[in-house]
Amino acid sequence: MHLHRRLVAASFVFVLLAGVAETARAQDPLASWNDGAAKKAIVEFVRTTTTTGSPQFVPAEERIATFDQDGTLWVEHPVYTQVMYCLDRVPAVVKAKPELASQEPFKTVLSGDREAIGRLTEEDLVKIAMATLSGMSAEDFRADVTKWIAAMKDSRWKRPYTDLTYLPMQELLKYLRASGYKTYIVTGGGQDFVRAYAERVYGIPPEQVVGSAGATKFGYGKDGKPLLMKEPKLMLNDNGPGKAEGIHLMIGRRPRAAFGNSTGDREMLEYTKAGDGARLAMIVLHDDAKREYAYGPAAGLPDTKIGTFTQALYDEAKKEWVVISMKNDWKKVFSFE
Amino acid sequence: MHLHRRLVAASFVFVLLAGVAETARAQDPLASWNDGAAKKAIVEFVRTTTTTGSPQFVPAEERIATFDQDGTLWVEHPVYTQVMYCLDRVPAVVKAKPELASQEPFKTVLSGDREAIGRLTEEDLVKIAMATLSGMSAEDFRADVTKWIAAMKDSRWKRPYTDLTYLPMQELLKYLRASGYKTYIVTGGGQDFVRAYAERVYGIPPEQVVGSAGATKFGYGKDGKPLLMKEPKLMLNDNGPGKAEGIHLMIGRRPRAAFGNSTGDREMLEYTKAGDGARLAMIVLHDDAKREYAYGPAAGLPDTKIGTFTQALYDEAKKEWVVISMKNDWKKVFSFE
Repeated sequence: MHLHRRLVAASFVFVLLAGVAETARAQDPLASWNDGAAKKAIVEFVRTTTTTGSPQFVPAEERIATFDQDGTLWVEHPVYTQVMYCLDRVPAVVKAKPELASQEPFKTVLSGDREAIGRLTEEDLVKIAMATLSGMSAEDFRADVTKWIAAMKDSRWKRPYTDLTYLPMQELLKYLRASGYKTYIVTGGGQDFVRAYAERVYGIPPEQVVGSAGATKFGYGKDGKPLLMKEPKLMLNDNGPGKAEGIHLMIGRRPRAAFGNSTGDREMLEYTKAGDGARLAMIVLHDDAKREYAYGPAAGLPDTKIGTFTQALYDEAKKEWVVISMKNDWKKVFSFE
Repeated sequence: MHLHRRLVAASFVFVLLAGVAETARAQDPLASWNDGAAKKAIVEFVRTTTTTGSPQFVPAEERIATFDQDGTLWVEHPVYTQVMYCLDRVPAVVKAKPELASQEPFKTVLSGDREAIGRLTEEDLVKIAMATLSGMSAEDFRADVTKWIAAMKDSRWKRPYTDLTYLPMQELLKYLRASGYKTYIVTGGGQDFVRAYAERVYGIPPEQVVGSAGATKFGYGKDGKPLLMKEPKLMLNDNGPGKAEGIHLMIGRRPRAAFGNSTGDREMLEYTKAGDGARLAMIVLHDDAKREYAYGPAAGLPDTKIGTFTQALYDEAKKEWVVISMKNDWKKVFSFE
């Protein structure tokens, strides 16, 4: 009986301690991050900028954090999701304009020849983007993207593209927001495309998505109601230097923290880091061939067209920013693992 | 003694009642509005869109309200404040580029001949705007506007321009924000110009100011630090149809409520009103020559270049929107009255 009571008491203490550990784990907002320089840099940045009385305290209204999307928040290999969308829309565009069927690059896309499609140049892809991302109202486009992205699946994981966001980055978005930061997406991808799902997938509202943007044209529909038609005219090329320019245009404040993964993010990271006071610039290195992909010379691999991460970028990153190694810094890559 | 006690009691009741009345006044968020159709429309719109269970309830994230600035939030007559700024900057621009001194329209501006300056065409003003709003970094520009606007005074009221905001509209901004609405400025004026003071003057942060925007160019300064130079190239003409297009570009949601005062706001008001559910579109009529200005055919006066309010606009407004009469709907125009 005495022993029994001691056992009960010991079990109780054990359960209690287990509960405390559980709570501690549950309370770690960055639970999918391994302890290391990357996680430490994030926690330290948040502490120093949000603790009242800290010499590097940042007022709430100036807490702006910007995130690249492709390769930073979700998978970008082997093909950008938006390129898949554009290719899938080609038949509908050709149906509306049959003369395109015999013209390149539309002819190649319609052939279904995967190798030939893989050889399309950037110029070809821009032509396809212009044709497939215009000629409809902004509202119809949004509805079309919403439908497409709910239906399509990635070929490797057999899951919707929107499942392929990185869990550690989702935790980081939430952690920053809980610390009073406004989180923005600043993407080279299409602003209207990303806005169609960003609120559901990342908790980021349309007005906090900055991306490459085509012009729209105000007019009246057949029912006499005003509408905005998407035009085949690029207003903002939100990539490379365009990211810093896009941030100024759309936000009007220099970010306190920025996150990227390729040369297209270099200027955003430099611009962020050049501000006074505490600034955080981080870059994701795709060095995990097993759980995701490994690419770029920095990972000791050949460069790819997508998510270029050169040795020069890696050198700058190691010196000026904080590198996030997918392989070493992330306990889990996806929430479904 | 008895009488004295009654008097004391009566005084006490009087003071108490006065206090209650005072509190009621203080608690009316639209205290500077007279009771009437305009005030009623605002209060009813807020009630119906923010009361849980209301058939026209609007979720918090969709509560977007957009405001024109010149003539809607502050005085636009006799000259837009930003035009004054541009004219004042001409000497500095000519100092940097002396060859402009002998070229029009700069020559006329430098002459100081007020009548000749008053006859400058819109094309002239665009040339002046391009020259005076570019050629410096975005940060230097902001500092310059901040300094200028603190120093300059309006010629009629002898007060800083930023004192000339309309008290009833300031109350409306606060009332909407207290009701969960995000308030935006959507101005035909320069985005960077308005952003320099909007947070201080209207409580509206830079990222919620949409305006006509010039391009910037990312580069590195003499110290090697990244900077954004303002270019003489218009990216977004945020006026007329451009206001609806600018809202799509910068916000990505159709507003629930919009406020304007001229033909430049027509498309924004139409676009807002065409959405489903409860929508509020209001237009300020400048019909108060005594306390502010009266202009436009709708006020029975000749049309002016600034704040055009035609009979056609008035007809559309009376049918589709709610007209705010400065004269009848506003108890006070300015806070300093």
